[in-house]
Amino acid sequence: MTFPESKDFSYFFSQETKSRRPSPLKTCIHHFSNPNLIFLGGGLPLSDYFPWDNLSAESPLPPFSKGIGAPPTGSKDDTLNVAVKKNEKTGNDIPLARALQYGYTHGQPELLDFLRGHTTEIHDMKYSDWDLIASIGNTNSWESTLRIFCDRGDVVLAEEYSFSSSLAACEAQGVITIPVPVDAFGIVPEKLEELLDNWTPGAPKPKLLYTIPTGQNPTGTSLSSERKEAIYRVAQKHDFLIVEDEPYYFLQVGNYIEDLKKREQVYSAPRPTHEEFKKSLVKSFLSCDTDGRVLRLDSFSKILGPGTRLGWITGSKKLLKAYVSLHEVTIQCPSGFTQVLVAGTLHRWGQSGYLDWLIGLRHEYVSKRDHTIDSLAKYLPKTEVFTVVPPVAGMFFTITIDASAHPQFKSKYNSDPAQVENAIYEKVVSRGVLVVPGGWFRTLGQTNPPLPDKSDKSKANEIFFRGTYAAVAPEKLEEGLKRLSNALKEEFGLTN
Amino acid sequence: MTFPESKDFSYFFSQETKSRRPSPLKTCIHHFSNPNLIFLGGGLPLSDYFPWDNLSAESPLPPFSKGIGAPPTGSKDDTLNVAVKKNEKTGNDIPLARALQYGYTHGQPELLDFLRGHTTEIHDMKYSDWDLIASIGNTNSWESTLRIFCDRGDVVLAEEYSFSSSLAACEAQGVITIPVPVDAFGIVPEKLEELLDNWTPGAPKPKLLYTIPTGQNPTGTSLSSERKEAIYRVAQKHDFLIVEDEPYYFLQVGNYIEDLKKREQVYSAPRPTHEEFKKSLVKSFLSCDTDGRVLRLDSFSKILGPGTRLGWITGSKKLLKAYVSLHEVTIQCPSGFTQVLVAGTLHRWGQSGYLDWLIGLRHEYVSKRDHTIDSLAKYLPKTEVFTVVPPVAGMFFTITIDASAHPQFKSKYNSDPAQVENAIYEKVVSRGVLVVPGGWFRTLGQTNPPLPDKSDKSKANEIFFRGTYAAVAPEKLEEGLKRLSNALKEEFGLTN
Repeated sequence: MTFPESKDFSYFFSQETKSRRPSPLKTCIHHFSNPNLIFLGGGLPLSDYFPWDNLSAESPLPPFSKGIGAPPTGSKDDTLNVAVKKNEKTGNDIPLARALQYGYTHGQPELLDFLRGHTTEIHDMKYSDWDLIASIGNTNSWESTLRIFCDRGDVVLAEEYSFSSSLAACEAQGVITIPVPVDAFGIVPEKLEELLDNWTPGAPKPKLLYTIPTGQNPTGTSLSSERKEAIYRVAQKHDFLIVEDEPYYFLQVGNYIEDLKKREQVYSAPRPTHEEFKKSLVKSFLSCDTDGRVLRLDSFSKILGPGTRLGWITGSKKLLKAYVSLHEVTIQCPSGFTQVLVAGTLHRWGQSGYLDWLIGLRHEYVSKRDHTIDSLAKYLPKTEVFTVVPPVAGMFFTITIDASAHPQFKSKYNSDPAQVENAIYEKVVSRGVLVVPGGWFRTLGQTNPPLPDKSDKSKANEIFFRGTYAAVAPEKLEEGLKRLSNALKEEFGLTN
Repeated sequence: MTFPESKDFSYFFSQETKSRRPSPLKTCIHHFSNPNLIFLGGGLPLSDYFPWDNLSAESPLPPFSKGIGAPPTGSKDDTLNVAVKKNEKTGNDIPLARALQYGYTHGQPELLDFLRGHTTEIHDMKYSDWDLIASIGNTNSWESTLRIFCDRGDVVLAEEYSFSSSLAACEAQGVITIPVPVDAFGIVPEKLEELLDNWTPGAPKPKLLYTIPTGQNPTGTSLSSERKEAIYRVAQKHDFLIVEDEPYYFLQVGNYIEDLKKREQVYSAPRPTHEEFKKSLVKSFLSCDTDGRVLRLDSFSKILGPGTRLGWITGSKKLLKAYVSLHEVTIQCPSGFTQVLVAGTLHRWGQSGYLDWLIGLRHEYVSKRDHTIDSLAKYLPKTEVFTVVPPVAGMFFTITIDASAHPQFKSKYNSDPAQVENAIYEKVVSRGVLVVPGGWFRTLGQTNPPLPDKSDKSKANEIFFRGTYAAVAPEKLEEGLKRLSNALKEEFGLTN
């Protein structure tokens, strides 16, 4: 089946992107490897002077049967040696001499090849001219996305609560973020459509929807395939691009099973096959995209380690071109060491071994999520004041709190839920546990375009806290949730 | 001796920087290592899931007696094994588990410690609150500097010809670059002062001077200590910041000695001591800086390898704070692998071994430079049409050409030197060698503030080409320069 090309969305580009001209110097660097031309063109140092050879690291060996967290023992049964030479091209390895040289703004070909293979395994690409480029992680990719598309005063849509760094990037750049109403399952497509249908005539319309579809930060919610399709149709109707920031995509831990026997049954079932695993994944926005209006930001931060500072951006070649031009004057490319080690590890694992890793990683988070929800059920006071919706993906859980139930809501806090939130934060920290107030993540729309009507007035006194089950080991997690529950009891004067 | 604090230059910050607020989430990540607090705050994955241990690489061993380009043989006499564990803190190494985690936007402490030690060895810091932070290289550092200080329409000064990527970053951001007149020794302080003394009243004054003081790209010129001091006084008088972009600082190859016997004498002298080497280095702008108005951009790209994507920014803490805030929403920090390997190598070498490396690196470039100038003297036609001033630093040489001497200057090229430049470029590439037209590097001032008066009308027909002796081995270099010379002869109809 042949797919059509992506549409041309270059009219969304910022003034900055439009005024960026191709660098003649960059074209000339491409001559570097032409054997007939003696290259006195650019300041490329001789690789003889790169002081490293025989780069190596040990990684665990697929299928990671003792669990992905089990440290390799050094034995051949569980340990893989990723060893890469400076000047030899072996298999799919990136020779160190090339990785440490200038060039390859898109990323090293061996790394991109692996990621393209991965993309076709996981996503259902629906236009012909898609591609991906390497990035240094989603934080930078999002900030760059704003530079590429938005001028001061431009508008982007974002979930009502969103990742504070992403919002901070908008604020500093003078980009207006308009909150999109969410419920326990993420963005509500009908409310998004309503918001856009009733947009103030003449006010600038949004260029982008920024969304963290899976295991959303901070709310922990996940968009279903159906909602994504509906949101995509709104994007087509009102013509904006969708930026899906998906660091937690592979942490899809499924529904929480309260009944322990049933849970045991499910979880003692054999490890899913690769096909079962892939089928179990929610459809991405990328897989809905017939126009080339989705930009997907992927990251190894939650999958291999944040300090890799490595990720990738997938979208239409027409849009990726603008990222490459920006990268040429900013990051140039991710670290060569990182690319050598990550590509070296992934190629040795193979696509199949990488799926084993992802399955193993998900397995870890399933038990973390379950342990968290079990503990909250055990320690949290049994009252409707506190609500926990078990997350189906990601690293975060939230406790939603009816601030008006606080005994001093009126007397001390002037009926202001934000003041209650602050008091709770101080209390829990003083009791030795840190969770983050939801208010820190609020997407603040500004005055010119209309704010969504707070239709559900019953929620006006709702506050929430974001916790994570990622950062600590199980015993500490349980102790933390106990401290948290006790602090909440104390604050609300509850005893059960 | 105690030094005063730096001055407060925050009034130079851009609208973007001024509107950047500290992220509450970042403050809360600092609690991560507090043993009394259970951290359910941020999405930090357990380091158990980082799939690497026993990272290692081989590097040559100081004092690099066979030359820095000699590959280590694996023997203990010339080979150093940089081996770093995931979870052990050994000596000055950065444990891999920490390097691959979030945090340390400034850079890993062990790396910064080494660089601070290096800074006090090389520079003469004259105010108390200086510091440095890690960067991902000078291209990104300069682009970030523009974001931090400049709004659209702001003005920066730059050498009349400058690095095209740096200028491209200005252009895209809508920052106006005003060219500063240069001669064969770089910026002419008196002309800089004249330019500013005669600034159009009411026109926005420059916030920054962007300069590549040593081995300037593309002209190959280097500023003397005296010129730097004079330029610094102009910066104080007219109140702007100086950004010194110094990737080639340690490639100070000294004066070219034409007389081969004398050269042999000088170069067969014993290797300089560390003290002699340090004394031989030109004074940096950093060492002139009493106010804290200099930002120095350093990079490992030309010293260890471009693909490290690692550098550092030195300046007053007051100004560095703005870089950290920007890095928090962009790069976060350089790659953990890079930081582990570079810091691991440097700490094993020690400050003393690192000086050995720098001395050895300079030695390589001395012979490259000499070989280039010798070959040009040998092959270039003996005429005043072509001028070569031997560079004293860096990777670049330039051939200045009197375009009006072209036999078809009027008849074919309409007395336009740019057309001659283009014709020469096409000719040399067709003859199998690539050098870069100087016109690609022109700093284009725009209309509102005054352009410097092209006082030296005799230079109106001067064009130049930038070549590098960095990128190819000696035999190829000589062949390239021969091809270049022949192409020029051919183009200008010369026979000698």
